[in-house]
Amino acid sequence: MSDTHVTAPTQYIEVDGDRFAYRRWGKPSGVPLFFVQHFRGGMDNWDPLITDGLAEGREVILFNGRGLASSSGTPRDRIEDMADDIAAVIRALGLEQIDLLGFSIGGIQAEEVVLRHPELVRKLLLIGTGLRGGEVAVDPKVPEVATHPVPALEDFLYLFFGRSEAAQEAGKAFWERRHQRVDQDPPSSPELMMAQAEAVAVYSPLRPGETPYVYLNAITQPTLVINGEDDVMIPSINSWHLAQNIPDAQLIIYPDAGHGAQFQYPERFLKHAVQFLDE
Amino acid sequence: MSDTHVTAPTQYIEVDGDRFAYRRWGKPSGVPLFFVQHFRGGMDNWDPLITDGLAEGREVILFNGRGLASSSGTPRDRIEDMADDIAAVIRALGLEQIDLLGFSIGGIQAEEVVLRHPELVRKLLLIGTGLRGGEVAVDPKVPEVATHPVPALEDFLYLFFGRSEAAQEAGKAFWERRHQRVDQDPPSSPELMMAQAEAVAVYSPLRPGETPYVYLNAITQPTLVINGEDDVMIPSINSWHLAQNIPDAQLIIYPDAGHGAQFQYPERFLKHAVQFLDE
Repeated sequence: MSDTHVTAPTQYIEVDGDRFAYRRWGKPSGVPLFFVQHFRGGMDNWDPLITDGLAEGREVILFNGRGLASSSGTPRDRIEDMADDIAAVIRALGLEQIDLLGFSIGGIQAEEVVLRHPELVRKLLLIGTGLRGGEVAVDPKVPEVATHPVPALEDFLYLFFGRSEAAQEAGKAFWERRHQRVDQDPPSSPELMMAQAEAVAVYSPLRPGETPYVYLNAITQPTLVINGEDDVMIPSINSWHLAQNIPDAQLIIYPDAGHGAQFQYPERFLKHAVQFLDE
Repeated sequence: MSDTHVTAPTQYIEVDGDRFAYRRWGKPSGVPLFFVQHFRGGMDNWDPLITDGLAEGREVILFNGRGLASSSGTPRDRIEDMADDIAAVIRALGLEQIDLLGFSIGGIQAEEVVLRHPELVRKLLLIGTGLRGGEVAVDPKVPEVATHPVPALEDFLYLFFGRSEAAQEAGKAFWERRHQRVDQDPPSSPELMMAQAEAVAVYSPLRPGETPYVYLNAITQPTLVINGEDDVMIPSINSWHLAQNIPDAQLIIYPDAGHGAQFQYPERFLKHAVQFLDE
């Protein structure tokens, strides 16, 4: 019997003195797909419909970064250190190359993985994410909601989904799917939240004299950039800038959707992702 | 034996005193897909790989507008009149509803068809196109090349394709495909070119007091907007504006590609278009 999102056991791999939690399942063929999650999120914040759908054609690997939920250690407070941790985990798993999917802060980490460890990544998926020097969200409600001690359904409906009734219903359906697994991780700690917030704050400004976005020209991997048309957390125009500056990047934008567009349109996203990965 | 791009006979239908040339083939199921071509282009400027690929799941209909190539009549010099002609041809063919694919000036016509005759269109594909009040191309080489008396391969390689060697090779492969049919249409006339140029010039400026792009909010059809990342004819950012203002529009942008991105990546485009039409 093969594993699924709800049955794949949580495993641990030791890297540099800490134990990183991960789950790995799917069809062992080709290049595995490695997932890096959003602000404060871990393995149980993914959508089973997406992970199991992708696992039909490849192995999928979910993981928690250092100090996040079921992983031990002191949370990283720099994006570059998070990226190096990801590379170390990939190598510790004995993998030569992966496809890398990063969502939100996970996308920024994924960009740094390909810039710092390009040999490890075959293809790159960047979802609801940004880039150094990008445009920032202006509504003060965003940081207020995103830092609630215990993120609730209503918070995700506001932060991740479109404003129509259909979009909000899709958000609730996602919420139910993501709770299907019984043995969920503990929530990540306030320390992890503070460390990730610091990492984003330090990473985001352009460096002195830097021309916006040209650093992305160094990414040679085929890349798929996806977002909703109105992302309240990381403005959608940043996805345009990503695709304009990563040489081999496709851009896909979904209507009536926000930061978590892939969770709102899981079947549509799945087909787009599979087409990209199999091409 | 079923027809294909190279064998489908040229037929004619009379509308309002003129004979419109069209070709129609494919699987007779569901809603036919109606194609509206670029500046000066007609039925033989499409890519057989795309038309035949789409014809596997539906009927496809190519046509020439009034006074274009094998169609009789005085060329239209207003976008709205071209749109009304398209609606009249669809009705004359006995069709209640179509999916509508417009490329470049054909895209602008398609937008006016859905605005003026919304009941005729189920889904809308807008490729390498713009919108009223959009950003305009600034390189004077574009109108110079686009108005060459006899458009040559080199002209299309500049106007339609990316700048890399691979992109240019893909352009040459398209050029060969589009010449596979033996009995090609005559080229369209200088009068047609002048009329289309006048239509675009008159249509493009915002109307007095008009807020940019809000007129697109009235389009209720599911829409797929596609372009290359650097369209020298109609700047790619217009595709962003289309997707931001048509309520149910997806946006897809292809890398290293320009105005004719669908001809550069025909297999990729075909899958995206089929997914959109079948969803």
